Amino acid sequence: MARPLYFDCDTGIDDSLALAYLLASAEIDLVGVGGVHGNVTAAQGVENTLRLLDLAGRGDVPVAQGASAPLVGEFGGGAAWIHGANGIGEVELPEAAAKAISDDAADLLLRLSHEYAGELEIVAVGPLTNLGLALQRDPSLPERVRAVTVMGGAALVPGNITAVAEANIAHDPEAAQLVIAAGWPMTLVPLDTTLENQFEEEHRAQLVASDIPIARAVGEALDFYFDFYVELYGRRSSALHDPLAAAIAVGGIQPAVAPRVPVEIDTADGPSRGQTVCDLRGQRRGWVDRADANVRVVLETATQLAPHLTERLLALGAPRGR
Amino acid sequence: MARPLYFDCDTGIDDSLALAYLLASAEIDLVGVGGVHGNVTAAQGVENTLRLLDLAGRGDVPVAQGASAPLVGEFGGGAAWIHGANGIGEVELPEAAAKAISDDAADLLLRLSHEYAGELEIVAVGPLTNLGLALQRDPSLPERVRAVTVMGGAALVPGNITAVAEANIAHDPEAAQLVIAAGWPMTLVPLDTTLENQFEEEHRAQLVASDIPIARAVGEALDFYFDFYVELYGRRSSALHDPLAAAIAVGGIQPAVAPRVPVEIDTADGPSRGQTVCDLRGQRRGWVDRADANVRVVLETATQLAPHLTERLLALGAPRGR
Repeated sequence: MARPLYFDCDTGIDDSLALAYLLASAEIDLVGVGGVHGNVTAAQGVENTLRLLDLAGRGDVPVAQGASAPLVGEFGGGAAWIHGANGIGEVELPEAAAKAISDDAADLLLRLSHEYAGELEIVAVGPLTNLGLALQRDPSLPERVRAVTVMGGAALVPGNITAVAEANIAHDPEAAQLVIAAGWPMTLVPLDTTLENQFEEEHRAQLVASDIPIARAVGEALDFYFDFYVELYGRRSSALHDPLAAAIAVGGIQPAVAPRVPVEIDTADGPSRGQTVCDLRGQRRGWVDRADANVRVVLETATQLAPHLTERLLALGAPRGR
Repeated sequence: MARPLYFDCDTGIDDSLALAYLLASAEIDLVGVGGVHGNVTAAQGVENTLRLLDLAGRGDVPVAQGASAPLVGEFGGGAAWIHGANGIGEVELPEAAAKAISDDAADLLLRLSHEYAGELEIVAVGPLTNLGLALQRDPSLPERVRAVTVMGGAALVPGNITAVAEANIAHDPEAAQLVIAAGWPMTLVPLDTTLENQFEEEHRAQLVASDIPIARAVGEALDFYFDFYVELYGRRSSALHDPLAAAIAVGGIQPAVAPRVPVEIDTADGPSRGQTVCDLRGQRRGWVDRADANVRVVLETATQLAPHLTERLLALGAPRGR
């Protein structure tokens, strides 16, 4: 039985990879997608999601637009220099037949949590505003959710939006703190490991050469993304932020180092605002789970994601028996 | 010519090691010592400093008591479980002939900065309250100071007093921010490297077996300190926090990785209060100095401190020609 999964994203090039990966994963059933501000406006992200789903022949998946700004403050303006002005590397996709549903993303998530009570899993790879709103509307939500996997934070490496803060968390620290403190089984996939899982030209070439429309589209979008990463890695390639969270949630990639520790989001107004404070003290002699932990923090993966991700995306054309 | 050096400390077992190291270093002339709250009360730290100096036959060095509490808030209560109730591992030293001078530590520092204008170097291994007070009393102080070396912070490793904050900085974040922003040539020696420089039983045994009174005394004090570090390292040994800052300031130990980067102290009231925010973004492809840097952050040393420290302390009995 495929596990029901709600995906929350700000689509985004690596969000697109994560979405394609989820569509290619028979372990899960993508029962809904919410869009949130982040890499692009919430509206642009939803448009990208709808077109990617259409391209994959999955216009049946309900897509809901969510928050266009964080719980506190305003939309950060996106990251056009990383993801392109349209969020998917300036790749132009055909208009989708389907439209977003009338519910907003938080309401979609709440509805799905009842429909699949006790079974629903959540993967969130953008700012956590939609999840925060859902928790505010119904604090009993965690009782009906089986697992939450979030791409976010920087535990023992520098941040990517400030010296210590990672963008997803920092774009809505108040919502992130609600999510972190909600008491559900939560896994965090921070920069520590997403930056160590890289997608190379050899992988991208396989996607671009494919006759599977969504695989080819994300391969083409990665062209833009690869340019951004030259400064970081010294070569055209990319980190695999969002697809790594998806792959860990699905079970396609296993964590190798993932201690359960206390995690707190800095919501104060100092230079550390938006930091994901992971308490990794006392772990020098071997990683151990803490009794007072609220989050499992993935610091290393057992294997590299890129070959697995490429393989799954290239199998997207194969019959799914759905 | 020996370089004039002012030492600010909260004496402390590793402060004692640093003090002995400075006395043993012909490169510098210890022209004054200030005491500050931290590992112990300011008064207890000054008493320890006076007795250690007396034991080394250096009762001539002026010692001034400084701040007994941070600029904001109250004395943290010390760390008796690490340093012993008296700060020097319950070792009882003979009373010193000399007393503290009547000036407080900040005034001593200011006086020395005029006496050795342009030449004075500062090594600070406790909370930075005395330096902060000196800066408040005379903002022109940095013009007369050649170099400042501080033991403090945690750049890419967990903190030791909170998940992200190191004790010296966190015990007075407001003072630390004043010091960090003062515009003088500043070197920070954080936990990243002090925890990697360890003192072992073999080194301690050499000190204890010595007939040099101060070397033997700190060797005996380390017995208590070694017990604390069993939980961290899994064996009796210790980190070399304060003496590493002293050795880097003196030049006895060379930094191997020490980028100049922007550093800021978190003085907000969130979970990151007291964090030393070192901006190490974009350093993945090789460490580079940043044009907007204010601090040199020592992340690795070229050699281990313990053999060098032991050698210097065991040479303390030799004639200094002073």
